Amino acid sequence: MEKLKIYKIGGNIVDNPAALSDFAQEFAKISGFKLLVHGGGKIASKLSQSLGIEAKMVNGRRITDPQTLEIVTMAYAGGVNKNVVSKLQINSCNAIGLSGADAKLIVSNRRAVGKIDYGEVGDPVSVNGELVKLLLNSGYTPVVAPITISQTNTLLNTNADTVAQTLATHLSKLFDVELNYVFEKDGVLDSQGDVISRIDSSLFAKLVESGEVTDGMIPKIENALSAIAQGVELVKIGKTEIFE
Amino acid sequence: MEKLKIYKIGGNIVDNPAALSDFAQEFAKISGFKLLVHGGGKIASKLSQSLGIEAKMVNGRRITDPQTLEIVTMAYAGGVNKNVVSKLQINSCNAIGLSGADAKLIVSNRRAVGKIDYGEVGDPVSVNGELVKLLLNSGYTPVVAPITISQTNTLLNTNADTVAQTLATHLSKLFDVELNYVFEKDGVLDSQGDVISRIDSSLFAKLVESGEVTDGMIPKIENALSAIAQGVELVKIGKTEIFE
Repeated sequence: MEKLKIYKIGGNIVDNPAALSDFAQEFAKISGFKLLVHGGGKIASKLSQSLGIEAKMVNGRRITDPQTLEIVTMAYAGGVNKNVVSKLQINSCNAIGLSGADAKLIVSNRRAVGKIDYGEVGDPVSVNGELVKLLLNSGYTPVVAPITISQTNTLLNTNADTVAQTLATHLSKLFDVELNYVFEKDGVLDSQGDVISRIDSSLFAKLVESGEVTDGMIPKIENALSAIAQGVELVKIGKTEIFE
Repeated sequence: MEKLKIYKIGGNIVDNPAALSDFAQEFAKISGFKLLVHGGGKIASKLSQSLGIEAKMVNGRRITDPQTLEIVTMAYAGGVNKNVVSKLQINSCNAIGLSGADAKLIVSNRRAVGKIDYGEVGDPVSVNGELVKLLLNSGYTPVVAPITISQTNTLLNTNADTVAQTLATHLSKLFDVELNYVFEKDGVLDSQGDVISRIDSSLFAKLVESGEVTDGMIPKIENALSAIAQGVELVKIGKTEIFE
């Protein structure tokens, strides 16, 4: 199978024009098949604020009401996505921007209403791998915004880390997939601030127990280990090593 | 050559959820290759207003400053485009939403600064026909937002009628193209209010001279005749006949 490198970038890149230009330059240089997933960054929150729409939070989690869905669709699938495409085209990378709704690239289940109703939020269940293969084989680089489509064909807001992991695991049936989470630090750091070069599930359990890995890093590594368990060759988290 | 039907819809459809659902249902039924171009409707103006950004007009023409470009990119390539894709998917039409920036689908010249500087506005010069062919041959229906990309890979706001005409003329090298402008009236009407069934350039000249065709209809018919002169088989302007 051919190799496919999937990269995921978040707010620290998409919110910073200089960082995005630097990233686009490095990403464009990568040879072989590649695919980029981007998060939304702060643009949706800024837009909501400017429009006087209050963010609805329940237990610290954002709720996607229909108005918020409209905003994130404009911001992520329109503003951020086409801006990233333009930056990649500047670097001669023939990017094609897509959301998960396009050609049903990523179909999700609308999250079931439990104690919390998250609103128009999707948990991905399937990937149109044939479309990705078609585009890669024709020399295009897909750039994916974290909006997906439900089984009843409505748009859903979806976590970008999850979108990247979903694409990686599903595409691992068609390609040897490497998944790279672009991160503001050099990698996962130990208590001395040094990069932990390699983490497997038993080391991860120890790192959580000892309190060396906490908070937002826990779901990130859980996502990574889950991707590995589902056939992804390698997951990297870091700043510059990911281009090696 | 295979037949390709291109449809262009504007504000009277995209601003009206019921009209859009009706259109999506009719469009989905069309057999064979098809492609949809949509305008932006009122969403960008509404968004600008809500954000307190004043529309800059010179001699009645809207100027696209960088802030307005960001807004139209979000509104057209994000909001409207993915909404249209979702409505088509509901009708089992496997739509794939694109802007002219994606895979350099439509490259434009940034409009030269003359008496008026229109800002970030593009006049199309080339089309990635191979991408359209690839997608159509694979069973996808392209849905195109009126944002294009410059020769230096920056985003440009572009008139949706012009985008449709550009796609039609360029794709007429690869397909037998029929171009359909979806219109709020039954077609081009004469002074009695009856549809003029067929217009060629000599009849058009007479209709303009007699004052039967005025205002916004003139550039629309000029666009249509120009498309015909450049190899498009047939251009239709109307409400329902265009689905026949």
